[in-house]
Amino acid sequence: MKAVADIGERRLIDLMMRHLTPMPDMPVSFWDDVSAVSMGGGRAAILKTDMLVWQTDVPEGMTPFQAARKAVVMNFSDLGSKGVRPLAFLVSLGLPKTLSVEAVEEMAKGFDAGAREYGAYVVGGDTNEAGDVVISGMAYGVADESKLMRRSGARPGDILATTGGFGKTAAAFKVLLEGYEAPPRLIASLLESVYMPRARVEEGVALAESGAVSASMDSSDGLAISLHDLSRSSGVGFRVDRLPASEDSVEFAEIHDLQVSDLVLYGGEEYELVFTVKPDGLDVAREALRRVGCRLIEIGEVTKDLDFVCIEDGVEKPIRPRGWDHFKV
Amino acid sequence: MKAVADIGERRLIDLMMRHLTPMPDMPVSFWDDVSAVSMGGGRAAILKTDMLVWQTDVPEGMTPFQAARKAVVMNFSDLGSKGVRPLAFLVSLGLPKTLSVEAVEEMAKGFDAGAREYGAYVVGGDTNEAGDVVISGMAYGVADESKLMRRSGARPGDILATTGGFGKTAAAFKVLLEGYEAPPRLIASLLESVYMPRARVEEGVALAESGAVSASMDSSDGLAISLHDLSRSSGVGFRVDRLPASEDSVEFAEIHDLQVSDLVLYGGEEYELVFTVKPDGLDVAREALRRVGCRLIEIGEVTKDLDFVCIEDGVEKPIRPRGWDHFKV
Repeated sequence: MKAVADIGERRLIDLMMRHLTPMPDMPVSFWDDVSAVSMGGGRAAILKTDMLVWQTDVPEGMTPFQAARKAVVMNFSDLGSKGVRPLAFLVSLGLPKTLSVEAVEEMAKGFDAGAREYGAYVVGGDTNEAGDVVISGMAYGVADESKLMRRSGARPGDILATTGGFGKTAAAFKVLLEGYEAPPRLIASLLESVYMPRARVEEGVALAESGAVSASMDSSDGLAISLHDLSRSSGVGFRVDRLPASEDSVEFAEIHDLQVSDLVLYGGEEYELVFTVKPDGLDVAREALRRVGCRLIEIGEVTKDLDFVCIEDGVEKPIRPRGWDHFKV
Repeated sequence: MKAVADIGERRLIDLMMRHLTPMPDMPVSFWDDVSAVSMGGGRAAILKTDMLVWQTDVPEGMTPFQAARKAVVMNFSDLGSKGVRPLAFLVSLGLPKTLSVEAVEEMAKGFDAGAREYGAYVVGGDTNEAGDVVISGMAYGVADESKLMRRSGARPGDILATTGGFGKTAAAFKVLLEGYEAPPRLIASLLESVYMPRARVEEGVALAESGAVSASMDSSDGLAISLHDLSRSSGVGFRVDRLPASEDSVEFAEIHDLQVSDLVLYGGEEYELVFTVKPDGLDVAREALRRVGCRLIEIGEVTKDLDFVCIEDGVEKPIRPRGWDHFKV
């Protein structure tokens, strides 16, 4: 009898979906970053739930406040990637009986801080006894259906872009999990990316309003997996000719003689938007992001062939569907 | 340093709420069964999240299908108790790596069965690695704000009523956890109440439409706790002169010489509605329930004094705020 570790997260979800009755007229497909339910008049309720389990998802040194705040950020990031502003957050908490009340109060502060940071509110929740701390978050927002940025709209010839550089969290996990060293300033910057991630909500809303984006998703499972997910939904391939390496990841790779492309492509827990822009919409998208203080980073193009290649040091390399899998890591 | 087991669930939530910024103009208070966010035009999005942890919440003999279905029922019950029809269900699943794929597929069937039973659909979810099976469910519906049945509207002189009898689950837990015996037919009926609970969704919607109800909640933490929760929100007391004992609980109490009131008042995991009806609305409420095949059971009245009493065998007894507490049981 097969166990979940044998088949991995994506195949498991595939199998589960065979037993689910599809809701008629869903505004987004089941494989998108969020769920949506039409509310009439061209508007939809946008819903997302995502869980953080202490033992497997919370790295060394992260505080209860930071973990709680991150549980908000990771749910809001999915809404932001669709161009949707989160309005409310709910949380279902699993708590060991022996956990200190102080830790729970710190979590409450983290939920509130995370929600308020994006203009939303914590509106409800529930506590339960559990063997480990489990933070199951839920985000709600409302969208104009016609403006939703789905995973499925990328077309050959579109420009591939991101809202920021990649590779910091992959480097940070090498520090946290594998004992890699670096100068204190660099360590601090890397750990900050893990402990205090930011969701690109304003950026997503601005891009959706611009009307220039053909497809978008968040990059929480890593850049490589995000490209493969976009491909699966849009039926296209990607050619990345400028890897969006963050300065920190370049510096870290140099210190340890690592391939910077490995850090950039195969990380995870990064919350940039990965999106495609219609060729005639690039200036509009760039300006939309500039107005919210973000730089549009062009990294390549959408191709008709279902290939995934990146250029590093002038050499063409495949981008593998490798990254974060809850059951196979 | 205090641990969560030292202070219990309600005090813990109290402490957490001190750190939360209240959303302006919430259509229901934080202490109600659901959360609500206004969507304009007198309508509100109704949201609920509740978690089921295998080790602590799933009794012996319950199958993965039944546990998953119950995770839907317990969330939908809260919506039903406000008079809201659930439209969608999402689930965040924590799964041990070693769990069989078959068990996960059975859960998927349970989610679908639970949602479809109430006319809703599973619209999304997420899987995560965890040490124990954790099912964090989330329900969404839309309500006419003016028809929401809150916990806060009970007034002295109102009639206290329920949608069904109590005591079966308390008896079932005595069988499952304490080894009590009973005739096979009775055992089967008791276990059915635990393994395949029903949410009173149609009943709640019918009561809300009737306009005759002043306050309502579901009874998942037990009848006694529900009355204390209604009291807290409405500022009233209750006098229960006819305990709503189910036939099975009376039979079980006789076999084992137990107080039937203990089974009826201090159980939990029962999903009846406990509600109050304006005196001139009783016939309307009764007829509304009759049309959906349910009998309105009058059990007592709302009092001005903050007392909680029930009459058993002609003797007046206090109803204590005792029942299900995740951390103190």
